[in-house]
Amino acid sequence: MQALWLEDKVLTFRDDIPLPSVLAGSVLVRVRMAGICGTDLELVKGYYSYRGIVGHEFVGEVVEASGQPSWIGQRVVGEINIACGTCVACRSGLRTHCEERTVLGITNHDGAFAEYVSLPLENLHRVPKSIPDEAAVFTEPLAAALQIERQVQIRPTDQVLIVGAGRLGQLAARVFALTGCDLQIVARHDTQRALLARCNIATITEDAVPSKKMDVVVEATGSPTGFELALQAVRPRGKIVLKSTHRECVEVNLSSIVVNEITLMGSRCGPFASALRLLASGAINPSPLIVARYPLSKGLTAFEHAAQPGVLKVLLEPPFLNT
Amino acid sequence: MQALWLEDKVLTFRDDIPLPSVLAGSVLVRVRMAGICGTDLELVKGYYSYRGIVGHEFVGEVVEASGQPSWIGQRVVGEINIACGTCVACRSGLRTHCEERTVLGITNHDGAFAEYVSLPLENLHRVPKSIPDEAAVFTEPLAAALQIERQVQIRPTDQVLIVGAGRLGQLAARVFALTGCDLQIVARHDTQRALLARCNIATITEDAVPSKKMDVVVEATGSPTGFELALQAVRPRGKIVLKSTHRECVEVNLSSIVVNEITLMGSRCGPFASALRLLASGAINPSPLIVARYPLSKGLTAFEHAAQPGVLKVLLEPPFLNT
Repeated sequence: MQALWLEDKVLTFRDDIPLPSVLAGSVLVRVRMAGICGTDLELVKGYYSYRGIVGHEFVGEVVEASGQPSWIGQRVVGEINIACGTCVACRSGLRTHCEERTVLGITNHDGAFAEYVSLPLENLHRVPKSIPDEAAVFTEPLAAALQIERQVQIRPTDQVLIVGAGRLGQLAARVFALTGCDLQIVARHDTQRALLARCNIATITEDAVPSKKMDVVVEATGSPTGFELALQAVRPRGKIVLKSTHRECVEVNLSSIVVNEITLMGSRCGPFASALRLLASGAINPSPLIVARYPLSKGLTAFEHAAQPGVLKVLLEPPFLNT
Repeated sequence: MQALWLEDKVLTFRDDIPLPSVLAGSVLVRVRMAGICGTDLELVKGYYSYRGIVGHEFVGEVVEASGQPSWIGQRVVGEINIACGTCVACRSGLRTHCEERTVLGITNHDGAFAEYVSLPLENLHRVPKSIPDEAAVFTEPLAAALQIERQVQIRPTDQVLIVGAGRLGQLAARVFALTGCDLQIVARHDTQRALLARCNIATITEDAVPSKKMDVVVEATGSPTGFELALQAVRPRGKIVLKSTHRECVEVNLSSIVVNEITLMGSRCGPFASALRLLASGAINPSPLIVARYPLSKGLTAFEHAAQPGVLKVLLEPPFLNT
């Protein structure tokens, strides 16, 4: 099959990849559409050591599900952490933190920039008919944005700042706007600002970030500058949510965290079912974030496009074969 | 009066300091006993720029209280943040984070290593008769330890680690032990371990700190090594409470905080009333942490003693004059 293959930090388009092996309890999914995420770009830069098919944001349909015929033909999205089910974390209900986990397209599990992908049945969520592929493909990053509200209560009276109006910041902003909170987002690019203006979300520049004022700040840039801005903006006893992985260690003034009693929280994967509810209701419409669609065979061009500053969601579409 | 005076990073004993001026709403307190804290040692090293009388842990008795005769002769302890009452933080109920605050013996307010100290009446708490001076003098640091439980719930089923068995770590350990949690504390010195053993609190060495296991970790060393140990020990979705100020910036791997969804919380001053309740009930007995008592006139020797590794609480006693 066709797939984007990463090996020794080199991404290649290949059409000679065998179909993924389907383990017991897993199903085979034909990928309808997949999205390029910041993590994919980092992978290609060699941030993680990974060899295999990349890609973890997708919508597809089940084509093989041993002993589970009701799933055949179902349109699905899939959670990306494949858990062992038996380690301490799994038994504590923290399956996204499974000590033995593999992660779709990131750690030891072939990903979704391919014609087919295999995942455990328990990772799948049916996509309601009302959600088009162009929205369903955002389920994974939207769930990641919702994870913030699973960890931190955003009150309707809170002053909230998002630092970074990229792929994740845009989704977090749309989610937070639903709480009625007083929301601002630091945006560098005109296209980012225009999209947020359409949702009545206030944007500011880095120079306009206030000092010690915000109840909650989300760092969605992954840069030391973004982290500094977040620390500057948060009020005493306020919260900073770290939503992007930082490639390098950052010099942190821990004393200011102690003296101002700041809470810093890391946040990763989130609840798919909640994301699907917001997509189904139409409360969140992520499709305007799509800036380009490429056939899978043009995947390398798509990656170059997605890596440009300020570019939001770039999609990949495998050829739609009859199976 | 006698006092320990800090100026240009030099601490001196002086007996020519005028009595503190008593502002409207404030009272004059004769100091009975005062304790040397890590922050005092840092002040003398020049960590903060402060000129004046140092000291913020004390027990004393009210000798002058304009219009409030019922306070005269009362034995008291005093909260150390002097708040303006009108800024945004004060109006939000965050008086310890007052933007205009002065801090007893730390920021623009003469401290308690003196014969007399002045504080606003609203900062004072009466000390019940059942609490001897040797316990009451720990009210401030005990309140700081209790602040942790104001910010983080310690469940009886939690695995909890304290890194550092110094002045604050010892108090935090005694407080946590009351929850029934599974508690361990990293202790470097035999004297620290012996004191904890008397409370049936388990100590471990740095080498024995587990990986990714603890629900809650308190960093009470203020050193980069202590922070590294805390990050190592905390489980995914676990919490690290930073309880000591760090003199320098620390290199932090923010990605591990994101991937493991760690929460990092700064924690500073705490609830005096709660501390007094635990001292009055006898649930916490901090007096065994006292290793030496010096007259105020031997304050410089007392500071040298307190700065030795592993030394716990050193007390200062002003001469007891008739007023």
